[in-house]
Amino acid sequence: MSHADRLAYSRSRPCRVSEVPQWDFEADVLVVGFGSAGASAALEARRAGADVLLFEVTAASGGTSALSGGEIYMGGHGGTPIQRHAGFSDDTEDFYRYLVMAGGPNADEAKCRAYADDCAEHYQWLVAQGVRYKNSFIKERIVEPVTDDCLLWSGSEEAYPFSEHAKPCPRGHTPQWMGMGGGKYLMDVLAEQVNKAGVRVQYEARVIALIAEDDNTVRGVVVKIDGVDRYARARGGVVLAAGGFIMNRDMVKKHAPMLLRAQYPLGTVDDGSGVQLGQSVGGAAINMSEGFVTLPWYPPERLIRGIFINERGQRFINEDCYHGRVSHHALQQGGNRIFILLDADSFGEPDFGQHFKITIGATGDTWDEVEAELDLPAGSLTSTVALYNRYAEQGQDPLFRKGAKWLKPLATPPFVALDCRIDHALYTTFTMGGLDTSIDGEVFDDTRRTIPGLYAAGRTTCGLPRWGEGYSSGMSLADATYFGRRAGKRAAAAANAAR
Amino acid sequence: MSHADRLAYSRSRPCRVSEVPQWDFEADVLVVGFGSAGASAALEARRAGADVLLFEVTAASGGTSALSGGEIYMGGHGGTPIQRHAGFSDDTEDFYRYLVMAGGPNADEAKCRAYADDCAEHYQWLVAQGVRYKNSFIKERIVEPVTDDCLLWSGSEEAYPFSEHAKPCPRGHTPQWMGMGGGKYLMDVLAEQVNKAGVRVQYEARVIALIAEDDNTVRGVVVKIDGVDRYARARGGVVLAAGGFIMNRDMVKKHAPMLLRAQYPLGTVDDGSGVQLGQSVGGAAINMSEGFVTLPWYPPERLIRGIFINERGQRFINEDCYHGRVSHHALQQGGNRIFILLDADSFGEPDFGQHFKITIGATGDTWDEVEAELDLPAGSLTSTVALYNRYAEQGQDPLFRKGAKWLKPLATPPFVALDCRIDHALYTTFTMGGLDTSIDGEVFDDTRRTIPGLYAAGRTTCGLPRWGEGYSSGMSLADATYFGRRAGKRAAAAANAAR
Repeated sequence: MSHADRLAYSRSRPCRVSEVPQWDFEADVLVVGFGSAGASAALEARRAGADVLLFEVTAASGGTSALSGGEIYMGGHGGTPIQRHAGFSDDTEDFYRYLVMAGGPNADEAKCRAYADDCAEHYQWLVAQGVRYKNSFIKERIVEPVTDDCLLWSGSEEAYPFSEHAKPCPRGHTPQWMGMGGGKYLMDVLAEQVNKAGVRVQYEARVIALIAEDDNTVRGVVVKIDGVDRYARARGGVVLAAGGFIMNRDMVKKHAPMLLRAQYPLGTVDDGSGVQLGQSVGGAAINMSEGFVTLPWYPPERLIRGIFINERGQRFINEDCYHGRVSHHALQQGGNRIFILLDADSFGEPDFGQHFKITIGATGDTWDEVEAELDLPAGSLTSTVALYNRYAEQGQDPLFRKGAKWLKPLATPPFVALDCRIDHALYTTFTMGGLDTSIDGEVFDDTRRTIPGLYAAGRTTCGLPRWGEGYSSGMSLADATYFGRRAGKRAAAAANAAR
Repeated sequence: MSHADRLAYSRSRPCRVSEVPQWDFEADVLVVGFGSAGASAALEARRAGADVLLFEVTAASGGTSALSGGEIYMGGHGGTPIQRHAGFSDDTEDFYRYLVMAGGPNADEAKCRAYADDCAEHYQWLVAQGVRYKNSFIKERIVEPVTDDCLLWSGSEEAYPFSEHAKPCPRGHTPQWMGMGGGKYLMDVLAEQVNKAGVRVQYEARVIALIAEDDNTVRGVVVKIDGVDRYARARGGVVLAAGGFIMNRDMVKKHAPMLLRAQYPLGTVDDGSGVQLGQSVGGAAINMSEGFVTLPWYPPERLIRGIFINERGQRFINEDCYHGRVSHHALQQGGNRIFILLDADSFGEPDFGQHFKITIGATGDTWDEVEAELDLPAGSLTSTVALYNRYAEQGQDPLFRKGAKWLKPLATPPFVALDCRIDHALYTTFTMGGLDTSIDGEVFDDTRRTIPGLYAAGRTTCGLPRWGEGYSSGMSLADATYFGRRAGKRAAAAANAAR
């Protein structure tokens, strides 16, 4: 490697201010990425009076947010109007405690606190942007509405152990958009606001390095446009909102190799550049091994009356948990073979079974037949079912504490085993590790000192969602939009102070 | 934070060469840390003609290596003299394959290859330093000899799935030292050589920052001695061998929070400074979530005939695996309660039971009594034992594939459950994530470009051992000594080239 190569700026090495040949662009706040975090940051910065320039590597807004269902996890303050209308009261402390539990052993309590305290305002903000929510609640446990309905159970709120520590309430809010794909609708609404507000947007612009002082104070970005390196100066700050790293398979291997087992990485760009850019000036990346994994095995919700087993015929989770929590545990089991055992009363064709490659593994008039057809050791599956049925009869599940409403002996033939094996079914995954940030999006170094001029939001950061076992649908968009807003405001304030 | 604070060098920010007031020390190679990695690096650098200065933060040599049993994992090439004498032939490819399996989903094949290929030479090198090995083999499965014997089964070589892919061979080589604590002996031998070779050693010297050019080429270290910052120049390179980060609880929480559950962090300094110093100039830290966890529950080895269960009465591992692999899985089970079930034929008082707080959880003349005394759901423990016994009778374990020699029904009363609960027993732990390095100890950035002037070895790096499920006793010292040597040689070569 030549000296010149070593000096070359990259994702891993900032361009020093002294190396900048000329400033091609200038703005108060530079935002990198036009997903929900970048859009929210740009909007709030602009409205705080900042001149905002947003760089997006693709030709359109949306990012990975637009691939989602558009759900946002909201509650507290007695409930959003939609929660209240559906008859729920959601105490802020219950909401907070659920967020902390969901964050796992390294939960960021300050972020949980801030979001719980401000969530009523955040809901109003979303509505003010033009995001429509229908005043409706879907009682059945689903993954994402195929209608234009709003409120749903999108986590493990009613399931052990969450239900023991926080009063359950449904908190997934899906925009009023007919069919799946509410994420695209949400992003279109936010993008329209971004354009209306006068944010300048440069598409097909790949940020390839930060520009920083020798002390790593960030002053801008190098952005490749039409094959040419251009130099953009940020008077206030740079907001990295460039997604996670699930599409960077090498990076996944280094930090979260378990996620390589899941066949369906959910991302657009998500090449890890946001995290790497932050690290290049000393930003700390934390919880890098954590990710979201799911196989959406329900609806219909009667499948929850079934039991999951691993290839040793053992149960491993209370099946009334959020599908992602169940799937996370499935991935931790030794071996690839995972089944859902159902009887005639609980069986249903999984709504998304075909799409995610859930197939029929075996059928039988007795559990012995199913066990034999699956080629499981005689007595393994059958003893698990016998023990489950013995307690289900009494409305109990002393092993895993599945809720009583789902407990009924699996005793009505024919019996079915749905095949959810890891190496065949499409377990979906994205990363949850990233830059450590303050509640205002300031990027921390490993001693939690902030790096001047640098902000981040969304999956480039390690935010509210940071634990595969705790994730609930809507948490990532909640985190991206709310903390994106805060990062934008803080960067704009820095620009104002610098004037 | 003031501008001055931001400019201040630290573990997280290098001192720039332009900031160095004067050079207080100079050497060809600077080594940070006097454990086995630092000692090996210093020795080889010195013998390659380099002037070597070693900084050690404590008042003595040893580091965490001196807390260990001194075992080194060695094999291949038909076997070391001790393996051969004990009747084993160990093919290099079997050794290599075992190392790769032990490394898990992000194994470093280049490191496995290099160590497997060079292991015969490394054995001779250790002997040449004066490390004595008695020509003896301990057949029984133990953790560490209390005698001066050498060779032992120190991993999962004979256990599924390892045994399917690599012909089993015992590879743990313990120095000839009466009693436990062979690590102290090993370090004393290496330290004597370090002194004899003419390595300059400065004790009570805390390296607080790297010194680097603006392009992050490393030129030296800032070292605090008697409260004063001193500036040390490295003509060839700096070798970071400052241990892992298990004693930095904040860092463990950010990267490997699961390890916080283990009550007994095994470390001396191990404050993460090695990893942080490397990151401060762009070094990539990988696999940071991985760690070693163990509760040394055997010997006596007849305990292996027992079965481990979690608090749902379920088995979770073939119990003939290495104690660390079993313990790793114990930690992954939901809940804190973990038991070993034994009958009169398999029971024995664990040798280290008192030290590590393994206690009697329950006894009974029937398994029903034990189940009730442990307050486990009726039918949970008993159905697990019934299924296990049914197959053990035939010499089989279709669920977990424990080896036939350990299989015997647990059917002779009285029955015992040993209590190994996570929140009480002393599960020991250290970290295995760290700087990504070449086989010559060159520190990589996140695109695997080397950082000029910077080398690392031992638990400051992510080396051969990097997966809690795969660790085997002796792997960390093998990695530290062998790759420590290579790092020292490479740094010395850089110094020679710079002359």
